[in-house]
Amino acid sequence: MQIIESMISTRPNGLKRDSKRIAECVATCAECELACLACADACLVEHDLGMLRRCMRVTMDCAEVCGITARLLARPFSSDSELEWALLEACARACAVCGAACYHQAEKHEHCKLCGDACRRCEEICRELLREPEGS
Amino acid sequence: MQIIESMISTRPNGLKRDSKRIAECVATCAECELACLACADACLVEHDLGMLRRCMRVTMDCAEVCGITARLLARPFSSDSELEWALLEACARACAVCGAACYHQAEKHEHCKLCGDACRRCEEICRELLREPEGS
Amino acid sequence: MQIIESMISTRPNGLKRDSKRIAECVATCAECELACLACADACLVEHDLGMLRRCMRVTMDCAEVCGITARLLARPFSSDSELEWALLEACARACAVCGAACYHQAEKHEHCKLCGDACRRCEEICRELLREPEGS
Amino acid sequence: MQIIESMISTRPNGLKRDSKRIAECVATCAECELACLACADACLVEHDLGMLRRCMRVTMDCAEVCGITARLLARPFSSDSELEWALLEACARACAVCGAACYHQAEKHEHCKLCGDACRRCEEICRELLREPEGS
Repeated sequence: MQIIESMISTRPNGLKRDSKRIAECVATCAECELACLACADACLVEHDLGMLRRCMRVTMDCAEVCGITARLLARPFSSDSELEWALLEACARACAVCGAACYHQAEKHEHCKLCGDACRRCEEICRELLREPEGS
Repeated sequence: MQIIESMISTRPNGLKRDSKRIAECVATCAECELACLACADACLVEHDLGMLRRCMRVTMDCAEVCGITARLLARPFSSDSELEWALLEACARACAVCGAACYHQAEKHEHCKLCGDACRRCEEICRELLREPEGS
Repeated sequence: MQIIESMISTRPNGLKRDSKRIAECVATCAECELACLACADACLVEHDLGMLRRCMRVTMDCAEVCGITARLLARPFSSDSELEWALLEACARACAVCGAACYHQAEKHEHCKLCGDACRRCEEICRELLREPEGS
Repeated sequence: MQIIESMISTRPNGLKRDSKRIAECVATCAECELACLACADACLVEHDLGMLRRCMRVTMDCAEVCGITARLLARPFSSDSELEWALLEACARACAVCGAACYHQAEKHEHCKLCGDACRRCEEICRELLREPEGS
């Protein structure tokens, strides 16, 4: 999302970590939210729905957490870094749990594989931001 | 969002309009949601905040409507086409209103210009989907 | 939600329909959103999950639409009455569809009955607001 | 929200803490989300908008976090207690920050006082759940 990077970098003052990295995290969280919703919806028409109970549950949680993380990080001045930190941690965790559940079904269902891929990318980029010292 | 197109096109059965077009609309709505949130947040640090009251209000509405439109369309089997239709209409309208308000501030604030651009793109793609006969 | 009624009625100026009615609609939409999420989640542990596919899908849509309707109406000055109108219509429709699907399962599952009740109340109050002339 | 308590207590099996307490927390988070949105919107028409920048920012964050906390807790089987824990913590924190900022404006603006009250109640009930041993 080039536009989010531009939005963050046009902020009248201040600097909040690396605009490019934040924008990348926002885009990845937004993509993961939607991939999770799409996966849960696709599960609902599968023949082996009974095997997908856990997968559906965790995708619902993960979609919510990815969505709020994208929205909070997209706001360039949202200033409570402790809150951002807590949500990045929660998002990385939800993605780890969801990614594992989805990969477990990846051989049978392409949508689970794609969702697992989205979760893995999202977990990685959240953890990268968590490692980065603020203000760098 | 290549992944959303792939998710939609891997659905076990059925076909819901053109996957590529839907995925493009999902990505554009998601981007517009986040651009609106970023713009409202950037407004909050401007010196002429008093002039941005309307801009902030409509971006908040627009962010909500773009967000739900992205989420509903991302679910490949979500089957109530009348509901989708109503939300695409509402989204196009919210983007038209927000885009106009943002462009009004575009010369003074780059973030308003960027948000206006996002709204314009989002309105256009929603209207394209509304024109498209379903099942084509 | 007494607090929402108080919030709406303390607005510095203007008047947006009847505060009491709007606050009642906000509370009912919020309750219906959460009832839908709870019902979908409860479906996921039922033995006859295969019979609940449609129920789960429509509760997910309904939860989204009720949520956004509550949030838009809770903002006392949110001024685009055409957008509010569109969302009240969409919410009434989503609740009608979801309520019917849930009542279809009401004999077997208490959570579906409760969710159907919430949808029925929410549909009714949305339709009441739609009938009410604005500014009355 | 009697209905949420009933929904949680009708779950086919298992037990997740005290239904009554969880339902109370869900209702309080949902109320706080909407009070925050109403307060931010009411701020937008105030004469001293320039003094309300921080208030508006933190209400936006708080609304998001309260919303997701309500939605996660409303799902009776949503099973990742570590994720719930993280969000209850984040919610208590966001409410503490937002409540303080709103009370700072409470003498001038009734909506800020009401929002501060909602935040305080929400923080308290989140902290109560955090103290409660799971499974009790």
